[in-house]
Amino acid sequence: MIVELISVGTELLLGNIVNTNAAYLSEMCARRGLSLYYQTVVGDNWERMAETIRTALGRSDILLITGGLGPTEDDITKEVVAQVMGRRLLEDKHTRERIQAYMEAYAASAGLKEIPENNWKQAQIPEGARVLDNENGTAPGLILDDGGKHVILLPGPPEEMRPLFEEQVYPYLGELSQEVIVSKMVKLCGIGESSVAEMAADLIAAQSNPTIATYAKVGEVHLRITAKAETEQEARKLLKPLVREVKLRFGPYIYSTEEKGTLEGSILDLLNDKGLTLVTAESCTGGMLASRIINVPGASEVLKAGLVTYSNRMKRKYLGVKKSTLKTDGAVSEKTAREMARGGCEQTEADVCVAITGIAGPDGGTEEKPVGLVYIGCCAAGKIKVKRFQFTGGRAKVRSQSVSAALTLLRECVLEQYYHS
Amino acid sequence: MIVELISVGTELLLGNIVNTNAAYLSEMCARRGLSLYYQTVVGDNWERMAETIRTALGRSDILLITGGLGPTEDDITKEVVAQVMGRRLLEDKHTRERIQAYMEAYAASAGLKEIPENNWKQAQIPEGARVLDNENGTAPGLILDDGGKHVILLPGPPEEMRPLFEEQVYPYLGELSQEVIVSKMVKLCGIGESSVAEMAADLIAAQSNPTIATYAKVGEVHLRITAKAETEQEARKLLKPLVREVKLRFGPYIYSTEEKGTLEGSILDLLNDKGLTLVTAESCTGGMLASRIINVPGASEVLKAGLVTYSNRMKRKYLGVKKSTLKTDGAVSEKTAREMARGGCEQTEADVCVAITGIAGPDGGTEEKPVGLVYIGCCAAGKIKVKRFQFTGGRAKVRSQSVSAALTLLRECVLEQYYHS
Repeated sequence: MIVELISVGTELLLGNIVNTNAAYLSEMCARRGLSLYYQTVVGDNWERMAETIRTALGRSDILLITGGLGPTEDDITKEVVAQVMGRRLLEDKHTRERIQAYMEAYAASAGLKEIPENNWKQAQIPEGARVLDNENGTAPGLILDDGGKHVILLPGPPEEMRPLFEEQVYPYLGELSQEVIVSKMVKLCGIGESSVAEMAADLIAAQSNPTIATYAKVGEVHLRITAKAETEQEARKLLKPLVREVKLRFGPYIYSTEEKGTLEGSILDLLNDKGLTLVTAESCTGGMLASRIINVPGASEVLKAGLVTYSNRMKRKYLGVKKSTLKTDGAVSEKTAREMARGGCEQTEADVCVAITGIAGPDGGTEEKPVGLVYIGCCAAGKIKVKRFQFTGGRAKVRSQSVSAALTLLRECVLEQYYHS
Repeated sequence: MIVELISVGTELLLGNIVNTNAAYLSEMCARRGLSLYYQTVVGDNWERMAETIRTALGRSDILLITGGLGPTEDDITKEVVAQVMGRRLLEDKHTRERIQAYMEAYAASAGLKEIPENNWKQAQIPEGARVLDNENGTAPGLILDDGGKHVILLPGPPEEMRPLFEEQVYPYLGELSQEVIVSKMVKLCGIGESSVAEMAADLIAAQSNPTIATYAKVGEVHLRITAKAETEQEARKLLKPLVREVKLRFGPYIYSTEEKGTLEGSILDLLNDKGLTLVTAESCTGGMLASRIINVPGASEVLKAGLVTYSNRMKRKYLGVKKSTLKTDGAVSEKTAREMARGGCEQTEADVCVAITGIAGPDGGTEEKPVGLVYIGCCAAGKIKVKRFQFTGGRAKVRSQSVSAALTLLRECVLEQYYHS
């Protein structure tokens, strides 16, 4: 089956936002075993959108259309699709009730007196369409089947689109395809993409079924191994030898083999299993590390506190960094990172503390200590390890790389001190 | 003049990489005053790429094609374009010399003995094409003019494409375009997208030149007003009355009229202007608020510390929340938010403290205090204001909405206490 993506939105054509939806949906389609030949972005314009949809219907079996389902007059995707497919728009009672409930909750918190009239537009559904309830917004997803073609509409905001896709569209796509695709994710940290490619070069060159693909993420590399077969059992059988080989080669770098496994989640599991507590001490990343950890449900069992100590005074007050260290070595130094990590444990009585201090830029760099210089310290079971990094890129990139590196070091120290000893 | 983007690459269709080139080029084209109606992604496939190029030539004046100029057999963009436009490929002596020089330097550093044979493919140029020297790789950019159509080929890697575009293509596009486009961004917080749409319904309905468009962001709405004219001065003149009207209608909600203005940046400016210091106290958002603030360069002047106090014990230790409050009202309550905000100021001697406590889910909710319930407190000049929110969506969405709401409340309190009094 051939799938085609259409992303609707003038904000994409103006370059206001990056089309991350297309990358996400393409990856999910590849995983589902669907061939994808075209991605198109078109604006909120009736004629051009209609033309794009007609062209896509002529050459593909499944259309995944995102965006343009909002309550404003600009949002016309549903209307255009209904016209192209010759369907009337009718109010869906169920959707109207859901909008009512959603908006009442929202109106109360936003201090609105009543629900804006244009929101009801979102309860209009093309006749015969299957409605996909949206738990994170008022625009439902829609599936229209017609003469062997399948048109799927999804809201544009990723935080609405992704859960809708994962929970309701991905299983539906599975029903459409005749083949069974099974894939296994292997997630690595502490190793670069080119090293992975080199270590797996023979496997990549020899791939046919199963296939092996690498995805570079910030501070991580993901390997997906995918097999196609007529039955799930057969596909799993095909998968097994290659998965075993990959695990053998990349063992120590593997933090998860779960599709939804995250580096921070795997670390919390390690800490939780041993009943250990954690504290974070951040300078240039300013809460980004704590925030990533706290995004894991149940993080409260492990993370005692997160301390963002941007100024020297706060580094002294909350982490007990010595005045003399800050004076002689500076805030961005091996010694400060070491004292921050030790101080974090001492001040909060946590078992483990990971600390970050660096220069995220754009200002503050010198010849000796350029922008991107970051020291990361980790104290576990009283043992402290500090690593020095020289990252490239802008402020946001330096910060996100620092967070990934801190998690990688944290995992390494926890394994060394509490697991391998 | 109408421009169209074509991004070539199977890695885009597999979702291995995000198409940041498209966002970058779209923004640059908008700035140059070119209308862009379509972006297409197509794989390294001769028929589909040829079809895509022919379609684009039929409806647009300028084609910007990125990717597929590399040395491998998969890279066929130049060959397809030459065929579609009826040009022969000829070796370009100048380009061959440049490849030689580039590869000799690279070969030395990479330990290669000789230049791989397939690299010479990159010296083949469609007859009559203008060659754009690439300082960061071996694939040159190319411009082909034919019957009023302009086809521009650029390498795919952003670090090669961007400098090539900026230095050689952007000025070329300026020569082609007759119109000038000027746009003004107006960024709002504390008001929902549908309310904005309603309040601006007449302006949106009446738009032609200038146009007005709304963009919904988490906790924010952005309005872009855009005018086209023959000269920049004329465009600015067209823009003025509508911008004035928008400012009049949305006055108190406007936090910035700068393209790159952020809510957190505007708040730091307000605090900085009065020499005020800030501290954040976070529970469920766990550092996300501090992290957003610290992403603003120079935030260190204002933000004294960020305290992530996830547990009751840490709320008491770092923020002085009373044991009795936690016992009678609970950690997620109006009173706790109030004490967190006051305690943050007292403990760190900051002028302003914004505090967040809530239930991000998926667990921890009760009938009385459901998932998504968040209290946000702000203490400014000793005055404390607390707001209650009931957010919807998953853990990540509840957290990001909380951060936006906290910034909005923070802005409100700072304006009230230090500006309007």
